[in-house]
Amino acid sequence: MSDDSEVKSQPKEFISLTWKGESLLILDQRLLPHEEVFVEARTPEEIAEAIRTLQVRGAPAIGIAAAFGMVLAARSVKNPDKVMECLTQTRKLLASTRPTARNLFWALERMIACAERAPRNADLSGLLEKEALAIQQEDYQVCRAIGEYGAALLPDKVSVLTHCNTGALATGGWGTALGIIRSARAQGKEVSVYADETRPLLQGSRLTAWELERGGIPVTILPDSAAGYCMRKGLVDMVIVGADRIAKNGDVVNKVGTYPLALLAREHGLEFLVAAPLSTVDLSLASGEEIPIEERSPEEVLTLSGHLISTGTKAFNPAFDITPARLVSAIICEKGVLRPPFESAWPD
Amino acid sequence: MSDDSEVKSQPKEFISLTWKGESLLILDQRLLPHEEVFVEARTPEEIAEAIRTLQVRGAPAIGIAAAFGMVLAARSVKNPDKVMECLTQTRKLLASTRPTARNLFWALERMIACAERAPRNADLSGLLEKEALAIQQEDYQVCRAIGEYGAALLPDKVSVLTHCNTGALATGGWGTALGIIRSARAQGKEVSVYADETRPLLQGSRLTAWELERGGIPVTILPDSAAGYCMRKGLVDMVIVGADRIAKNGDVVNKVGTYPLALLAREHGLEFLVAAPLSTVDLSLASGEEIPIEERSPEEVLTLSGHLISTGTKAFNPAFDITPARLVSAIICEKGVLRPPFESAWPD
Repeated sequence: MSDDSEVKSQPKEFISLTWKGESLLILDQRLLPHEEVFVEARTPEEIAEAIRTLQVRGAPAIGIAAAFGMVLAARSVKNPDKVMECLTQTRKLLASTRPTARNLFWALERMIACAERAPRNADLSGLLEKEALAIQQEDYQVCRAIGEYGAALLPDKVSVLTHCNTGALATGGWGTALGIIRSARAQGKEVSVYADETRPLLQGSRLTAWELERGGIPVTILPDSAAGYCMRKGLVDMVIVGADRIAKNGDVVNKVGTYPLALLAREHGLEFLVAAPLSTVDLSLASGEEIPIEERSPEEVLTLSGHLISTGTKAFNPAFDITPARLVSAIICEKGVLRPPFESAWPD
Repeated sequence: MSDDSEVKSQPKEFISLTWKGESLLILDQRLLPHEEVFVEARTPEEIAEAIRTLQVRGAPAIGIAAAFGMVLAARSVKNPDKVMECLTQTRKLLASTRPTARNLFWALERMIACAERAPRNADLSGLLEKEALAIQQEDYQVCRAIGEYGAALLPDKVSVLTHCNTGALATGGWGTALGIIRSARAQGKEVSVYADETRPLLQGSRLTAWELERGGIPVTILPDSAAGYCMRKGLVDMVIVGADRIAKNGDVVNKVGTYPLALLAREHGLEFLVAAPLSTVDLSLASGEEIPIEERSPEEVLTLSGHLISTGTKAFNPAFDITPARLVSAIICEKGVLRPPFESAWPD
């Protein structure tokens, strides 16, 4: 499924994860857009820390980083009989970094399965390295497919509201919701974007604006709370977001603030599209209620650029929310456009 | 209607506007909660600037400040025949500061009416000073009445979600939505508050948290986008907000983000209460569509504490939004609790 020429056709600045053979080079997303700093993770522990501290973020990108963490684990063990034990421990470590995004667990399962099916005396590190690279390259292709299927749904001139960052930074390249926008643009469609700033970590104003401006796609930032008035004024035609985990019934867990957008979209008669690879879908969970929602540190809400903004000491800081399937117009994955009822729409 | 003993019973820190006889002392709300700095406005121009730059904010507080601006205008004119001309010009200046809140225009109209009905050779400055002080003191009493009527609607133990700042800082004292919360607390009810941080200027995390903590009322700050998940988790029992202008049909214009909250409240079967003095109501406008919505500088969205956060250059920054009357459970004013249809509910 890999296609190196296409991967290389991306602007270099959009590659957030680069495998260097013995380490993973990570574009530190916390420092964007002001500083483009790459950190080099040389151990599974450093990968875990990079995920935990959001140097790398975005559901597919987390999965990719974790896969390379498993490669580094295999590399670190001299005794071939001890590799599986180390992989099992590393999987546990990496799985403990963030609880919500499905892709993390999906990638770890895939790496373990790769190790388990490897013949005895095979070069396990080499096989795992190939598997991790495949996960990254496939994610890029999957995003391109999502982009094509999604772009077909967009009219020739369209204003799209999006939330958080779902671009090349958040994936193996191209992006999911932003991938659709980029594909539509590549097809010659006239796309403009309203991007929620996405408090508390401002992935919209920091990352989405940065990506879209580099891609020459017009972008207007708005406070998350202004999306309702934006729709009421008729400034947007549809909403497209990504997902961190999707339950069997089509309930979507995504960056906090997604659920109110879905309600607003319904109120204003706008399509609410979710773009995500099938690695985001968790068929083992009947509904969104079963998806664990990460709650992060109050400091993210109570401080701005490191300065305390409030004398209040308590903050409620869920990283995600649950959008009920009944508010979702379609889920766009690499196999096509799925429409409700989602329960029976999943491809084999 | 004035009652000095009650005004004095407020903690001193909650008085944001203090008339000094020849100037208005303004607690600079831009610097809270870190610095409690008072600026002294000695001219109508300085009052206008204080309103425009949000040193003073909150619909009722803006009206009060403008009233004192008219006093300072009258004071500045030596020739009694020129006072009305100066007042007319000053009214224009002050009315141009911010377009949305009704209370500003209401207070200016009241000051002009006071001047117009004054007998020739009367001490016009003195009469206007009395009128401005009355506007301030009445606003405090009005808030106390709103507080009593509203508190009666609250159960003995309740968790309230609110937006922006509607407390003593925003009014002549006590507050509107926060006034209800304070009154309920004063009646011995167990009230806890979830306060939206209220981007972009963070009146929730900066001002509401500051006021409530000083009042000993438990407060938890949340990103505006987290209100939906907060409701879904069953963490709040009702929503209470203020208003900047209310149309005849009951459409409510308030801080941007209010409309999505109202939609969410309906979705979750929660009461959505609006607390506002009748000076906020504009019976000359049939619906909210006719209310001018201020759009503020993109810099408020694109910067944080003076630092640029985005390479994006465009931002949509409406200060307010419109909540349709059909989403409003009740409007609580100084005359009681009004229920829909609001068109026929307004007191004489």
